Amino acid sequence: MKIYTIYLIKKLTKLVSFFFDYRAYNIFVSISRIIYASWISSEFKYFGKNSKIFSIRSLIGGEYISIGDNTIIGTQTVITAWDTHGDYRFIPVINIGKNVSIGNDCHISAINNISIGDNVLMGMKVTITDNSHGSSTIDELTIAPVYRKLHSNGPVIIEDGVWIGDKVTILPNTRIGKNSIIGANAVVTRDIPSNSIAAGVPAKVIKIIK
Amino acid sequence: MKIYTIYLIKKLTKLVSFFFDYRAYNIFVSISRIIYASWISSEFKYFGKNSKIFSIRSLIGGEYISIGDNTIIGTQTVITAWDTHGDYRFIPVINIGKNVSIGNDCHISAINNISIGDNVLMGMKVTITDNSHGSSTIDELTIAPVYRKLHSNGPVIIEDGVWIGDKVTILPNTRIGKNSIIGANAVVTRDIPSNSIAAGVPAKVIKIIK
Amino acid sequence: MKIYTIYLIKKLTKLVSFFFDYRAYNIFVSISRIIYASWISSEFKYFGKNSKIFSIRSLIGGEYISIGDNTIIGTQTVITAWDTHGDYRFIPVINIGKNVSIGNDCHISAINNISIGDNVLMGMKVTITDNSHGSSTIDELTIAPVYRKLHSNGPVIIEDGVWIGDKVTILPNTRIGKNSIIGANAVVTRDIPSNSIAAGVPAKVIKIIK
Repeated sequence: MKIYTIYLIKKLTKLVSFFFDYRAYNIFVSISRIIYASWISSEFKYFGKNSKIFSIRSLIGGEYISIGDNTIIGTQTVITAWDTHGDYRFIPVINIGKNVSIGNDCHISAINNISIGDNVLMGMKVTITDNSHGSSTIDELTIAPVYRKLHSNGPVIIEDGVWIGDKVTILPNTRIGKNSIIGANAVVTRDIPSNSIAAGVPAKVIKIIK
Repeated sequence: MKIYTIYLIKKLTKLVSFFFDYRAYNIFVSISRIIYASWISSEFKYFGKNSKIFSIRSLIGGEYISIGDNTIIGTQTVITAWDTHGDYRFIPVINIGKNVSIGNDCHISAINNISIGDNVLMGMKVTITDNSHGSSTIDELTIAPVYRKLHSNGPVIIEDGVWIGDKVTILPNTRIGKNSIIGANAVVTRDIPSNSIAAGVPAKVIKIIK
Repeated sequence: MKIYTIYLIKKLTKLVSFFFDYRAYNIFVSISRIIYASWISSEFKYFGKNSKIFSIRSLIGGEYISIGDNTIIGTQTVITAWDTHGDYRFIPVINIGKNVSIGNDCHISAINNISIGDNVLMGMKVTITDNSHGSSTIDELTIAPVYRKLHSNGPVIIEDGVWIGDKVTILPNTRIGKNSIIGANAVVTRDIPSNSIAAGVPAKVIKIIK
């Protein structure tokens, strides 16, 4: 009985897929994405011409976020520009350049300044943050981490043409120089010069391209 | 023709967004989440007052899982307490404390004991496991990994006030001491003392806060 | 008023959950998955008997992808076999063996050859790629990364019985020997011998099982 039901479901599905296959589904998804981008774009300070944004998971402070032209932001991204945290106030800035491609499932969080240059290519599951919960003093440790005052050591600057691999994390007060490449799973904790390849936890320059 | 259709879709979307904008959407999401949490909460051994749980991706063994008051569990989390694996039986325990915040996309898997203290703050895509597929003997390697007997070296204990970064993995038989901070992408393979900052793969203490 | 509304929602949800609880939901999900797998399976070159595939996030080049019998592919996986990139042409091959289990949120990208043996067990958020954007020469750095010619140093071969932890990344031109274990968050940049445990960024053999 159970096997027969599964058999029947499979046959019916084949029939449906005759009229609505994966290609048709993709057209449907593309149209949904145009509608979605058009709907959400007004939340941003600036949303570029021909830019695409797929279903975001969480957006906070869109009025502090600019997205350049011809940029693509992958699905399920969390992008938060906090102007308030408990009793504290911040003036966050997130600037994303032109022709940028941000992969799925990324997490970008600012209270200070995150600047992503033109032509930057980011993989999936990348975290970029300019802030942390507290500044790690002994007094603060008595406070629950979530209530510690958000603290920024400095901005994150990613220059033009940088390529960032999957699952990279970029921590506060760092600058990644023009055209550099950050290997998958790396954690950027300090400045990376231009035209270099950096990898590891923490990220170290493993090659300068000449 | 195609361009005109896109133009029309965009205009219609702007009209819709006049009545149903991102703020309205967020209210809708909040209500859905209350309904969802209320619906799923009865699956757990204990589900705390004022605790929130967003759409989970996979829940197994809820009767072994307690969630304290005022705790938030992010979306798409996989939380599994296995009491059976093939012919083997286990008595798993997952205890999550009060005022805990667990980020999106986390993966918690127990056959033994995972204990998360009060006020713990966890980032996104964190993996916590007290078990592995087999105990890595040469005899076991002839068995497909998925069929190797689940084995626990020991429980995972995360003490109060710990802050865990994005994409951290915490392996079996580890204890993270009170108020410690685990850097993004770290892999915790052994005990981390209280009031310390640990980072790297494997995680090493890089600073003791005094 | 607001509190009363929440109270009412909770009571109604309890009533609904009496008729449609998490168990019923799981049966519903299982049926949806049979329908989905049946629908999408015809997109692949070969889709194995009794194999399961959950909602994929992105599929490109299914005609170059074979999936063996009794294999499970987790949800939200991105699996792309590129035969074209700008003006360039490739002949990609992705072969996934029998009894393989691929976790949720994985990312597999080929322009050359990715071969996953039988009985391989993969965790969540694993990246496997046989290609990169360019070959890191100084001339190429003047081109935006997304337009650099996709380049493969060599295929990725994962032999039978390998177990890969959560958030691992496997880079081009690597072979992981039979029955080896790759620790969570590792980045595989070169060959790993059989029957060994490798971990770290980059992955190093930390134990040979004898």
